[in-house]
Amino acid sequence: MEMENSNGSSLQVQPLSSQNVGTLFNSVEAFIFDCDGVIWTGDKLIEGVTETLEMLRSKGKKLVFVTNNSSKSRKQYAKKFCSLGVPVNEDEIFSSSFAAAMYLKVNKFPKDKKIYVIGQEGILEELELAGFKGLGGPEDGKKHIEPKSNCHFEHDKDVGAVVVGIDHYINYYKLQYATLCIRENPGCLFIATNRDATGPMSASQEWPGAGCMVGAVCGSTQKEPIVVGKPSTFLMEFLLQKFQIGTSKMCMVGDRLDTDILFGQNAGCKTLLVLSGITSLSALQDPSNNIKPDYYASKVADILKFLED
Amino acid sequence: MEMENSNGSSLQVQPLSSQNVGTLFNSVEAFIFDCDGVIWTGDKLIEGVTETLEMLRSKGKKLVFVTNNSSKSRKQYAKKFCSLGVPVNEDEIFSSSFAAAMYLKVNKFPKDKKIYVIGQEGILEELELAGFKGLGGPEDGKKHIEPKSNCHFEHDKDVGAVVVGIDHYINYYKLQYATLCIRENPGCLFIATNRDATGPMSASQEWPGAGCMVGAVCGSTQKEPIVVGKPSTFLMEFLLQKFQIGTSKMCMVGDRLDTDILFGQNAGCKTLLVLSGITSLSALQDPSNNIKPDYYASKVADILKFLED
Repeated sequence: MEMENSNGSSLQVQPLSSQNVGTLFNSVEAFIFDCDGVIWTGDKLIEGVTETLEMLRSKGKKLVFVTNNSSKSRKQYAKKFCSLGVPVNEDEIFSSSFAAAMYLKVNKFPKDKKIYVIGQEGILEELELAGFKGLGGPEDGKKHIEPKSNCHFEHDKDVGAVVVGIDHYINYYKLQYATLCIRENPGCLFIATNRDATGPMSASQEWPGAGCMVGAVCGSTQKEPIVVGKPSTFLMEFLLQKFQIGTSKMCMVGDRLDTDILFGQNAGCKTLLVLSGITSLSALQDPSNNIKPDYYASKVADILKFLED
Repeated sequence: MEMENSNGSSLQVQPLSSQNVGTLFNSVEAFIFDCDGVIWTGDKLIEGVTETLEMLRSKGKKLVFVTNNSSKSRKQYAKKFCSLGVPVNEDEIFSSSFAAAMYLKVNKFPKDKKIYVIGQEGILEELELAGFKGLGGPEDGKKHIEPKSNCHFEHDKDVGAVVVGIDHYINYYKLQYATLCIRENPGCLFIATNRDATGPMSASQEWPGAGCMVGAVCGSTQKEPIVVGKPSTFLMEFLLQKFQIGTSKMCMVGDRLDTDILFGQNAGCKTLLVLSGITSLSALQDPSNNIKPDYYASKVADILKFLED
C-alpha cells in the first residue's frame, strides 16, 4: 500500500509479513502495547496474545502496557491481566490514571493542596498511592444539585487541580464542582487523562470516552486541559528512565491511529497498527487519514506467526 | 472611553447619558432585550424594568425578548414575566428552545423522523408545538447504564436530529444516546440551542451553561453543532419578518459581550451593554476584549432616567 503523507511525499505502509518481521524484531528492544483492542476486547483476551507475549519475553524483549483508560489503577490492571491468564507486573503497566498522578508529582504539586476528580476509582487510587489527597469521583456520583435563585454552591478553595477522565456517573454536580475550582481557585490546574472520543466499552459498540467529560469541562470553563495520556508523550519520560533504551528501539503497538500510532510517532518509536480493535483496513487506507504506521497486522499474534514461518 | 478594535482603528464606547439617549431613542423602532441579567436576575426583577418597558411601549417602540436559556418554552417564559408583574405576550419572546424548533421547521425536517433531546422541558414543549416528535430530555434524567462487555445499547434509528441545551440532569445514558444517534444515524443533525459557558442560575454564582453539555457531545462525536441561539443570527430572520423593520433601526440590549452584543453586531443592530449582569465595566474595558457595544449603561432603567433628565 502506498500513501501520501501530509507533506505530499509518498509513504509505504507495509503489512507485517514473514519477509519484514525479522527487521522489525531485530531492531526493537521494547514493545509498548495498548490494551483495549490489542490485548483484549472488553473482558475477552484476543487470540494468541499469551503465546506472543511469552515468546517476546523469552527473547529478552521488554514489554510495557500503556492504556488511556483511567477507570482502573495499575494494581487493578495487573489483576485484570492475571485473571485473563497473562502474567504482567504492576510496574509494566502505564495507565492514564497513573500518568495523572505522576504529572502532579513531577511538577511538585503541593501536598497540602487537593485534587478534584471527575472519573472513577483508578484516578483516586493512583493519587493516593502518590501521596496526594483526591476528592470527588465515585462519592459524588449520586449527588444532585438543582440551581435555585437563592442557592450558593460551596467548593473547597484548597483544590489546586482538577483531573478529568472517563466517568460513567458524570452529573451536573461534578461538572459544577470542577468548573468552580478551575474558574475560581487561582492557578488551579485542569488535567485530562486523555481525550479519546469513544472507547470499546462493550464488545459490539463504541461508548463515549474521556473526551466527552473533558469536552464538557472545556465548554464550561473555556479552558484547554493538560493531556497526560496518549497521544501526549508525557509517559515516555518514564519509559526512557526505566529502560534506558532509545525510542528508536521501541515499537508502539496499538489499534487507534489518533492516539496510539500518533503517540508512537511523536515519541520517535516504530509503530505497528493492529486491526483487532477500532481501526479497519479501509479507515487506514482512507485518503483523509494522514497518520501512517510503519506496519500493520491483523493482530498481535501475527508477530509470532510470521516469525515462525 | 476610547478603545481599539481588532483592526487597530479606535472605537468609541459611550456611556449612555442624558446627552446621547435621545439620538439612540429616536433612531430605534424596536428594542431587543436579553432576559437573564437584563430583565431579571434569577427570580428577581431588576429595578426599574417595568416602568422602562411601559414607557417604551407608550412611545410606540416594539419590544422583543430574546433568551439563550432553553430550559423553558415561550409559554413558560410568558408566565414568568407575568408572575413578575411585567405584561409580555408569548409572541414577543424568542427563546433558544423555540429557535431549535423553528430551525427544524424552516429546514423542512421530516415529520416522521424523531428528535433526541439533551435538555429540559422547554425544548420538548416547543418541538411538540411545532408538530415534531421529541424524545429523551427529562424522562431520561434518572436512567443509568453501565457499559459491560456483553451489553448492547439500543437507540432509535428514526432519530434524525439531536438538540442539546442546558440540562441539570445530564448523565452518561443521555450522552451515549445522543452520541449513537449522531455517529450512527445517517445524516443526523446536531443542533445546539447555544454554547454559553455558564449562566446566572443563582443570584450569587455562575453555573455551567449549555456550552458544557454541547462540549460533551462535541467531545464524543468529534463534530461541531449548528447553533441556533445567540450569537447566531438565525432568530433575526423571524424578527425581520415579524416587524418589517431594518436591523439598523433595532437596538440589542444585553449583558453578555460574546452572545448578546456579538449577536446584535452580527445582525447590524445598534447595541447597548447593561452592567446589571455578567459583564463588569473592567471586563468591558479590558484590552483583551474586542467586542465593543455602541453604548453601555448600568441597567435598563437608565434609558428612562436619562430621557426624563
